[in-house]
Amino acid sequence: MDNNRYFSLNKFFKPQKTRPLLHVNPTDNALRVDAEKSVITVFQYDENSVEEFKLDNIGECVKYKTTDKNIWINVEGLKRADVKAICRDFDIHLLIEEDILSVGQRPKTDLFEDFVFCLLYMLSYGQDNVLLNKEQISLILGKNFVLTFQEEPNRDAFDKVRLRLKNLHNKQLQQYGCDFLYYALIDAIVDDYFIAMDIFGEKIEEAEEHIVKAHSKISMSYILFLRKELLLLRRSIYPARDAISSINKNENELFSSKTLRYLKDIYDHILQATEMVENYREGMANLQDLHLNQANLKMNESMKIMAIVTCLLAPAAVIGGIFGMNFSQIPFLHDHYGFYFSVAVMLLIPLWMIYVFKKRGWF
Amino acid sequence: MDNNRYFSLNKFFKPQKTRPLLHVNPTDNALRVDAEKSVITVFQYDENSVEEFKLDNIGECVKYKTTDKNIWINVEGLKRADVKAICRDFDIHLLIEEDILSVGQRPKTDLFEDFVFCLLYMLSYGQDNVLLNKEQISLILGKNFVLTFQEEPNRDAFDKVRLRLKNLHNKQLQQYGCDFLYYALIDAIVDDYFIAMDIFGEKIEEAEEHIVKAHSKISMSYILFLRKELLLLRRSIYPARDAISSINKNENELFSSKTLRYLKDIYDHILQATEMVENYREGMANLQDLHLNQANLKMNESMKIMAIVTCLLAPAAVIGGIFGMNFSQIPFLHDHYGFYFSVAVMLLIPLWMIYVFKKRGWF
Amino acid sequence: MDNNRYFSLNKFFKPQKTRPLLHVNPTDNALRVDAEKSVITVFQYDENSVEEFKLDNIGECVKYKTTDKNIWINVEGLKRADVKAICRDFDIHLLIEEDILSVGQRPKTDLFEDFVFCLLYMLSYGQDNVLLNKEQISLILGKNFVLTFQEEPNRDAFDKVRLRLKNLHNKQLQQYGCDFLYYALIDAIVDDYFIAMDIFGEKIEEAEEHIVKAHSKISMSYILFLRKELLLLRRSIYPARDAISSINKNENELFSSKTLRYLKDIYDHILQATEMVENYREGMANLQDLHLNQANLKMNESMKIMAIVTCLLAPAAVIGGIFGMNFSQIPFLHDHYGFYFSVAVMLLIPLWMIYVFKKRGWF
Amino acid sequence: MDNNRYFSLNKFFKPQKTRPLLHVNPTDNALRVDAEKSVITVFQYDENSVEEFKLDNIGECVKYKTTDKNIWINVEGLKRADVKAICRDFDIHLLIEEDILSVGQRPKTDLFEDFVFCLLYMLSYGQDNVLLNKEQISLILGKNFVLTFQEEPNRDAFDKVRLRLKNLHNKQLQQYGCDFLYYALIDAIVDDYFIAMDIFGEKIEEAEEHIVKAHSKISMSYILFLRKELLLLRRSIYPARDAISSINKNENELFSSKTLRYLKDIYDHILQATEMVENYREGMANLQDLHLNQANLKMNESMKIMAIVTCLLAPAAVIGGIFGMNFSQIPFLHDHYGFYFSVAVMLLIPLWMIYVFKKRGWF
Amino acid sequence: MDNNRYFSLNKFFKPQKTRPLLHVNPTDNALRVDAEKSVITVFQYDENSVEEFKLDNIGECVKYKTTDKNIWINVEGLKRADVKAICRDFDIHLLIEEDILSVGQRPKTDLFEDFVFCLLYMLSYGQDNVLLNKEQISLILGKNFVLTFQEEPNRDAFDKVRLRLKNLHNKQLQQYGCDFLYYALIDAIVDDYFIAMDIFGEKIEEAEEHIVKAHSKISMSYILFLRKELLLLRRSIYPARDAISSINKNENELFSSKTLRYLKDIYDHILQATEMVENYREGMANLQDLHLNQANLKMNESMKIMAIVTCLLAPAAVIGGIFGMNFSQIPFLHDHYGFYFSVAVMLLIPLWMIYVFKKRGWF
Repeated sequence: MDNNRYFSLNKFFKPQKTRPLLHVNPTDNALRVDAEKSVITVFQYDENSVEEFKLDNIGECVKYKTTDKNIWINVEGLKRADVKAICRDFDIHLLIEEDILSVGQRPKTDLFEDFVFCLLYMLSYGQDNVLLNKEQISLILGKNFVLTFQEEPNRDAFDKVRLRLKNLHNKQLQQYGCDFLYYALIDAIVDDYFIAMDIFGEKIEEAEEHIVKAHSKISMSYILFLRKELLLLRRSIYPARDAISSINKNENELFSSKTLRYLKDIYDHILQATEMVENYREGMANLQDLHLNQANLKMNESMKIMAIVTCLLAPAAVIGGIFGMNFSQIPFLHDHYGFYFSVAVMLLIPLWMIYVFKKRGWF
Repeated sequence: MDNNRYFSLNKFFKPQKTRPLLHVNPTDNALRVDAEKSVITVFQYDENSVEEFKLDNIGECVKYKTTDKNIWINVEGLKRADVKAICRDFDIHLLIEEDILSVGQRPKTDLFEDFVFCLLYMLSYGQDNVLLNKEQISLILGKNFVLTFQEEPNRDAFDKVRLRLKNLHNKQLQQYGCDFLYYALIDAIVDDYFIAMDIFGEKIEEAEEHIVKAHSKISMSYILFLRKELLLLRRSIYPARDAISSINKNENELFSSKTLRYLKDIYDHILQATEMVENYREGMANLQDLHLNQANLKMNESMKIMAIVTCLLAPAAVIGGIFGMNFSQIPFLHDHYGFYFSVAVMLLIPLWMIYVFKKRGWF
Repeated sequence: MDNNRYFSLNKFFKPQKTRPLLHVNPTDNALRVDAEKSVITVFQYDENSVEEFKLDNIGECVKYKTTDKNIWINVEGLKRADVKAICRDFDIHLLIEEDILSVGQRPKTDLFEDFVFCLLYMLSYGQDNVLLNKEQISLILGKNFVLTFQEEPNRDAFDKVRLRLKNLHNKQLQQYGCDFLYYALIDAIVDDYFIAMDIFGEKIEEAEEHIVKAHSKISMSYILFLRKELLLLRRSIYPARDAISSINKNENELFSSKTLRYLKDIYDHILQATEMVENYREGMANLQDLHLNQANLKMNESMKIMAIVTCLLAPAAVIGGIFGMNFSQIPFLHDHYGFYFSVAVMLLIPLWMIYVFKKRGWF
Repeated sequence: MDNNRYFSLNKFFKPQKTRPLLHVNPTDNALRVDAEKSVITVFQYDENSVEEFKLDNIGECVKYKTTDKNIWINVEGLKRADVKAICRDFDIHLLIEEDILSVGQRPKTDLFEDFVFCLLYMLSYGQDNVLLNKEQISLILGKNFVLTFQEEPNRDAFDKVRLRLKNLHNKQLQQYGCDFLYYALIDAIVDDYFIAMDIFGEKIEEAEEHIVKAHSKISMSYILFLRKELLLLRRSIYPARDAISSINKNENELFSSKTLRYLKDIYDHILQATEMVENYREGMANLQDLHLNQANLKMNESMKIMAIVTCLLAPAAVIGGIFGMNFSQIPFLHDHYGFYFSVAVMLLIPLWMIYVFKKRGWF
Repeated sequence: MDNNRYFSLNKFFKPQKTRPLLHVNPTDNALRVDAEKSVITVFQYDENSVEEFKLDNIGECVKYKTTDKNIWINVEGLKRADVKAICRDFDIHLLIEEDILSVGQRPKTDLFEDFVFCLLYMLSYGQDNVLLNKEQISLILGKNFVLTFQEEPNRDAFDKVRLRLKNLHNKQLQQYGCDFLYYALIDAIVDDYFIAMDIFGEKIEEAEEHIVKAHSKISMSYILFLRKELLLLRRSIYPARDAISSINKNENELFSSKTLRYLKDIYDHILQATEMVENYREGMANLQDLHLNQANLKMNESMKIMAIVTCLLAPAAVIGGIFGMNFSQIPFLHDHYGFYFSVAVMLLIPLWMIYVFKKRGWF
């Protein structure tokens, strides 16, 4: 039954879920396991033409570098050797190389003289909308190139951008240069935040409706599970805001004023995302209060019923005791209807008690 | 009965109410459904004359643009095609166009070189004061024009301004130029916040009186409902403060120093609105404490009564048991008044217990 | 009885008390009802002479304006027509006029080129120290005049200043010009805050002593009442701090450097007032914890006593039941002292239970 | 018994303890009662000589002022007339005079052109470490003089400095001028904070050990008492940090760069003091949680025991009732061991219940 | 049994654990006890050669100072005399000397004209991962020397750096000068934070799994113990962030721009560490909520079972009482199956009650 899913700890609450939140290592890349597969794609484009190449070998990248066209190299699936090679070829600073290969790194922006490095997380729900995944994405903007590194080859946030790049009818992306492509890629990531947040929002709503409508309680563990998911959202989105803000504030010549206007727009979006996260926090607080309230109501109702039954039967026991005494002279004892009368009193007293208690609002 | 309305979940607590808070999409305007009807009004005015036109066709707007008079175009009911057309005619940036058509956007101000864009929410209660509605309003100030976009044609926040504009006796609005009209429109929106907040404040008071006077509890769901309404107020008013603040800080030449003095006044009002919201938060906290207190008092009173009755009857049961034993020699058993005496003791012990317990304050 | 006053809701908890906190209207002065009576006083003074005039007619004010002496016009009791007339005569900006006539306005300072406007609240307790009143006071400093507007003619915060002004022995006030008078008036208002806060502090202490000493609980409603009073203090004092701070930061030539040193002193005082308010918040938190603790203790004590009595009598009931069974062969049944022995056991078991429970700390 | 001390309200919880926190008056020195005794000491020193004078009469101070040596005048025990006299003699601003004589003033620094005024609190525990005392100390640094005012003549924070000043072997204090003496005096006060905080820290630890080890609960009142003491610490130390910070930021020529380096060191200390205070707040929160937990555990344990006993005896009562019924045909009634069998069942059922309940973890 | 370890107070909760958090003394080094053993190591290196010396006598240090090579002197185990000697030899300011010898000092950075002083804590868990240790480490960077002071000779955070220094294949450390060595040392300390935090994170997870999976509760004391450990982490890491930030902001010529880029990287790491700490705080809050929830569930379950049993048996007692009455005419009393019938009713009523209660969800 659907309702029961909230109660099944085993399905929802996986302790390993907390791992990415509580363990991190920003430099020592011993934790980074090489991806099994890696896909390298190169886009070479100018205003009039777009060419796409799938590379087998990371070493081939460098030959596209020397062209006077804009290039975008996208690496899906991180292998230590690949990252090192490409960083060497494009003169990327050693520290950036370390950041790309780090695990659990905080979203951030590093501004260098001749390139911009930005590390963000892509957030997405799996097919069943149960588990929120995050994937570390590194984006580097140079003079006339953009490099992007994705952790896993399976998911892809950049399809939208790729389609737009190939479409030569709307040339905005092709005309504006690499900085605009860089903007478009970050925009794609931020747009995905809203999709993930929407699903999360629905989960909160669903749980709330579940409590209010079905008058059932959901397990504390499920609430904690949602709280952790929210923490994951917050830990990805808040530093992303700072990262994007510091791109906006850069005085690099890599960005044209036109692109800067668009970057400001992303900043507005990420600001809105943080506000959404705050809304979810309120929603979570509501949920917890509702849950506590519901749990207390149920518990107290049970106890009250037990106490009431016990209490209502007590007078009957006393009357039974009275006429069970062995005194030689007890009134009514030899009356014909004595027994029926006493039993009637046993019934009437509780009824009278119920009447009085109800009137006083004690039930 | 009036009191019962707090208990009827179905009437007050509508889960879809949470939707506008938990779902948002700042760019993808797929969610934006075109309004069924749209009303376009153009005001053309200078110091001496005011003319009002109702347009059937959005294309006609452009012909009013070339005049040397001030114009105000008000669009009620958003249609994608209309917005695109008017933005093209008035050279509005693409990003602004997207913002106007977005859903659930955060209130904000964008300062461009030759125009100012401001997005706010109008807040109003429906006829029965039950549901708080918000309507997204976009205001653009250009050289000698003001464009305003309202989501729905039914409600109208700008009637007050319209009347003032048509009234040629007090010419302040007509003399001061478009920037002052822009101020007057924002002022109208902010004034409506206070009306909405007043109704909300009355709801809190009513709920509080209900608890304190009638000694009844209101449902947790109703409190959560109020909390969400408060969240809606906060999420509309706080960013509006920032938006208005950044209009104030602009160094645009669109605003005369006279108008800036008035804009500062709106800022004071919106600051006051945020403070009111904080008051409501305190009021909500009080309400919740009162509710919890009341619920506990009621629960505990019931349990105590049950425990007291059970406890008071226990001695009688014991006495009944004593004289019900089958020992061959039991004192008083053959006394004439033995039975009456024992029953009297059964009554006197609880009375004595009541006396002792009352004295010690255990009741 | 004195103790009972905390329990009588009707006396202390007046829902209309929340009105000034939850309802406000910064512009629309429809809510402002003209005072029935208004008292207008003009002080005309220089270093050597002080003259006081009571005016019947607001129109007479203007004739004192032209003098080369300093003047202070104090209006007690606001009438719309009066305020409008005086503002016209002294060239006060329209927005200030609106602020003076507004209801529930937030304390604030507006710096104009040739005058300074400051709106503050005077706080005072009524005669029985039960209700905290606030009165809106507007103060305007011009070239050589000070205008003050008080809402009600009955209370007067400025008596102290008036006495000092009339006293020509200590000429500080007369020598330093209008800015120093302005300082002295604000100082008088801020000094009154400390008096009001002192009374409030005593209320908290009293309630605390009441709980700790008399071991009685005070009603939740009374605590909420104090919480609202504290909110009123906060909402008056915190913005007053900002208002005074912005006078301090003004670069107006209206203030001499000597007076600025004194203004800084007021700022220190208002800072201290805000700190006091924070102390009261802690005090309130303590009070609530104590109250909750006491309420729980009392409740639990009752329940425990009931449970103990019920529990102690249970063995006796069982023994009574045992010897009340109708088996043909029951030991001791025909013993001479069987009955006495069984009753003794009924008494001894509870005594033994009391001993054991006490030893284990279960009572 | 030692353990009981936490329960004796009368000894620890003195409502007048809250007075210094909740009552304050920054200007009106009506509350300031002249000290009964006052001790005035003058130190006159340069690099090579130190002379100490005990004055009988405040008027004599002025004759030490004209020397070209550094002087330090220390007044222990405040008398209104003395303060006024000395302030007149040394040209101290009227507002400073008021501050010295004020009661419950907030720690602060005032920077004047030719002198620096600093007001701090000395914190110390009485002999039995029970009550935390605070004493207001005012320090004024002028061209070549330092004036210090202590509220009470009995306690003295400056002994350490006095000894160092008299000791001509280590001439640091004598060589560096008045500003270094000023530093040394403030340093002495701040050092005392750590001693007071250490004692407070021990009290928290003691209370915590008391709860954890002895499994006893300490009274809520004692916790509130500690909370108030902590508030006193906070209210003295936090503003002291600001006061010292603003000395550091001063651009006065009174301080040499050498002394400024030392002042920065005091600032580090006071920063550490504020951090300690934060630690204590966490410690207090822990204490309260522990206390609540312990109180709940105890309460619940009692209730559970009572409920268990009542519950275990219920089956026996039922069995007694069964065989006490007067049916003419009841099995076992005439068996030889019927009685013993039934009593055995009465015993066995509770034992079985205990076994089941224990297994299920219900006990 | 493993599960029981959470319940054994004596093993985990050691009150002396709180001592380092609640007691501190920033100047008076009376608390500093000289280490029993101290190990002094000198590294003398330039681009081409590295020499290591173990010194017996602190006085020998000075002879390495005069060389034109870079030197690093590492002192493990603090002795007052040693510190004083070395500070004299290298012209370290008196206040720094005091800081090195202080106890419980707050992490901080002091920038002098010709050297940089940084005090940090090394955090590490003991062998059994039970107790978190902190060790105060002072690092001084001068023109061409680095001095480091470690409290204890046993643990060593700098092994990694030492190995790197001796390794002449990768000459980065040797080429870049003393400032880069300084960076490498701080980096080593910060890296250790992540190891300690990882262990702490595992403890939280373990406790959480313990509650959720085993459905058992862990003791409040253990949670408090974790809270204190977290406090220790926070109090070490937060000020370390400020310390490192202020190295970054220094305008000293001691750091080359190359090293500054690396210092910024440490800053990113420490920022991430603070974020981790915030995650742990959330984790702790979750843990406490879970614990409370679990404890309540268990308690309430017990009470409910007792109440249910008592309640279910009450009707049987009443029926027993009814047929135990001594009326002369009681129906069924002489029926053959009267007894069996009544006992059957005694059984059926509870069964019927169980059915009803279950259906209504009261169980």
